Amino acid sequence: MKTIIPSVKGTRDFYPEDMAVRTWLYNKLRKVSESFGYQEYEGPILEKIDLYAAKSGEELVKEQAFVFNDRGGELITLRPELTPTLARMVAQKQNELVFPLRWWSFGPFWRYERPQKGRTREFFQWNIDLFGATSTDVDAELIAIAASFFKEAGLDSDKVKIAVNDRRLMDASIKKLGVSDDNKKAVFRLIDRQDKMSLADWRAYGLDLGLTENQVDALRALMDNRDLWKESVELTRVFDILNKMGFGDYIQYDARIIRGLEYYTGTVFEARDASGEGRAVLGGGHYDNLVADVGGAPLAGIGFAMGDVMISVLLKKYDLIPGDLIPRAPVLVTVFDESRVGRAYAIASQIRQSGLTVVCYPESAKLPKQFKYADRIGARFVIVEGPEEEAGGLITLKDLKDGSQQAVKLEEIVLKLNELLAH
Amino acid sequence: MKTIIPSVKGTRDFYPEDMAVRTWLYNKLRKVSESFGYQEYEGPILEKIDLYAAKSGEELVKEQAFVFNDRGGELITLRPELTPTLARMVAQKQNELVFPLRWWSFGPFWRYERPQKGRTREFFQWNIDLFGATSTDVDAELIAIAASFFKEAGLDSDKVKIAVNDRRLMDASIKKLGVSDDNKKAVFRLIDRQDKMSLADWRAYGLDLGLTENQVDALRALMDNRDLWKESVELTRVFDILNKMGFGDYIQYDARIIRGLEYYTGTVFEARDASGEGRAVLGGGHYDNLVADVGGAPLAGIGFAMGDVMISVLLKKYDLIPGDLIPRAPVLVTVFDESRVGRAYAIASQIRQSGLTVVCYPESAKLPKQFKYADRIGARFVIVEGPEEEAGGLITLKDLKDGSQQAVKLEEIVLKLNELLAH
Repeated sequence: MKTIIPSVKGTRDFYPEDMAVRTWLYNKLRKVSESFGYQEYEGPILEKIDLYAAKSGEELVKEQAFVFNDRGGELITLRPELTPTLARMVAQKQNELVFPLRWWSFGPFWRYERPQKGRTREFFQWNIDLFGATSTDVDAELIAIAASFFKEAGLDSDKVKIAVNDRRLMDASIKKLGVSDDNKKAVFRLIDRQDKMSLADWRAYGLDLGLTENQVDALRALMDNRDLWKESVELTRVFDILNKMGFGDYIQYDARIIRGLEYYTGTVFEARDASGEGRAVLGGGHYDNLVADVGGAPLAGIGFAMGDVMISVLLKKYDLIPGDLIPRAPVLVTVFDESRVGRAYAIASQIRQSGLTVVCYPESAKLPKQFKYADRIGARFVIVEGPEEEAGGLITLKDLKDGSQQAVKLEEIVLKLNELLAH
Repeated sequence: MKTIIPSVKGTRDFYPEDMAVRTWLYNKLRKVSESFGYQEYEGPILEKIDLYAAKSGEELVKEQAFVFNDRGGELITLRPELTPTLARMVAQKQNELVFPLRWWSFGPFWRYERPQKGRTREFFQWNIDLFGATSTDVDAELIAIAASFFKEAGLDSDKVKIAVNDRRLMDASIKKLGVSDDNKKAVFRLIDRQDKMSLADWRAYGLDLGLTENQVDALRALMDNRDLWKESVELTRVFDILNKMGFGDYIQYDARIIRGLEYYTGTVFEARDASGEGRAVLGGGHYDNLVADVGGAPLAGIGFAMGDVMISVLLKKYDLIPGDLIPRAPVLVTVFDESRVGRAYAIASQIRQSGLTVVCYPESAKLPKQFKYADRIGARFVIVEGPEEEAGGLITLKDLKDGSQQAVKLEEIVLKLNELLAH
């Protein structure tokens, strides 16, 4: 026997049981997104590399993007994130769209990451963004949407926390430490690395970046300061709104939250398992310049993205994914013999008109085999029409739930099935 | 102002109005697929080129596939079709899956084609397949699914026809003309080209391929023979089943239908506008060897694929896509002033708990501006809470449908909204 041609590393096959989970998640995202008045959109999966070059962050574009030449010689990439596409789409129709604009999306993305728990190279991502507000109060809405989704999915505030920070607050605080503007990016990177290194390595890294011992110590103290948000008018308002909305329990201030994408200019946030374990489940923030950077007029945006992989890890951990999500056909029509295939298909078709899901066994086979198939696919009712039944204008209806069977007039079968299904 | 970075040629942006149409189509496909007991699955979007090399047809792989090297040096392709992935997935779990197996899918695909009416390079495709039947009677079920979808979408049998043929019948008929087995592929290509060339060019092409004048004439006669199916036991049964199911009006026999993919071994079919205009809307057929070709045990399959682009052309032609598919928020909560942002978000949040979709204006702005926004996003109700209202424990509810407004107790707002929405 030949070897089965393998799939590409980091991709996933969605067998029906996996696809049903993805659809379940998609429906939850849809429900929450729509309840806040967001409209679904989607961009292309291929974009020119230039779209990301400006702002997505070096690591994402240079190290993680799938880039290739199209046949016309242009550098094309499989999108590693959606926000630049979104900014392009908004810029393209900036004069027609109604602002404030609320959009959401759920689609596939690719990044060359090392496949591991909570990470695949091909993944799905929920993106939700609001454009055209001038106040940062609106940042509260996006954080509230994240919290609403967790609530909807059964992830209470003891299971997930949303950590919030503000880049402007960090800019000001770092400046106070005497760090030069040139060194700001490096310090952000240093903060971002905090949980990926030992304290000693982290300190050494800080000194390498040109910080003094005092600055490294002060930075460490800053990162642990849970009250720093009180110095920010914007965060104070955002937290107040979230408290009033009833989502206060989900929210934590955390000075260590920076987020890697270079386009964020204000509030940044990410959610993770309340235990602190694992990667972030979702992350986002406020960005003021992205629409202008892709060629539009200046327009502020705020949004977040949530991948399907890490959230699934969390939902599984807390056993929150329902077990039997695949829709099952309640009725199987059997094929009595070779001469009756057409009859069986016709009976199935007739019952299907009523809106019921009906499977017809696809060919003549021994009846026990067909009954066993009904059982394996989870069909409750089996229908048989043999020569005797046909002569009497009847069909035999067997209920696999209790093993009972009855003769039913063909024209009354739909009525009978609906009656039985109601019990 | 900078130029907006353009999208990649042949891709599409799905603005909310476009996305709503895609979702509407997806829901129709889901309804029809599930009514026949098919389960949704999905494969990766990246596959190794080897998966297609064997069977997808030379044109598809060599001329139309987006191929690139991944960072590991392997040749990867953006899937141009789903059937090989499906065969791989079935082969991988052949010992666990329950046969007959019924699966469907709706996802993105890529082909380097010249963008034109009914063609884009990035497109969506409905795939639906059945595996593990031994009789070709089952081919009728897939054709019935296609017809059911057309019916469900409002495309009656006077608008769309499904043309059916059988490769075995064609093999036998061509053999009778004295065409050698070596030349069979070329003759299939010749048949496939019939509607793309003038008769003179077509004849010349036939002679070029090494056919005699007599053979070319006989082939032409064969292609026009509407009764050829009567020589096929299999097609006779398939047509009989389809008639019994009530789909006879959609079906035509057509000896010119060959389908380009090389894996088809029996029934082949395609649907198009009844006028004959435009490209095929869907196409499929029976394939006996594909699972074995990708490394599984021999297993027959039958299925078809329908792209979203050509069906949309057809649905638009017959005005069958509903106009207002975007879900609208019925309620807008206004922000009275800067100090009341939190209150507005809290009121919106409270109403949202009841399941209603609620938009909160994201910041303080002049009320007429906020009312105008409500109107533009299609919200029917506008809620205002100013200092007067708050003092009285009331909010003002304005119905933009008739311009009426009333003071409502905050705790009764959900009841009141549901009452008004019911009328």
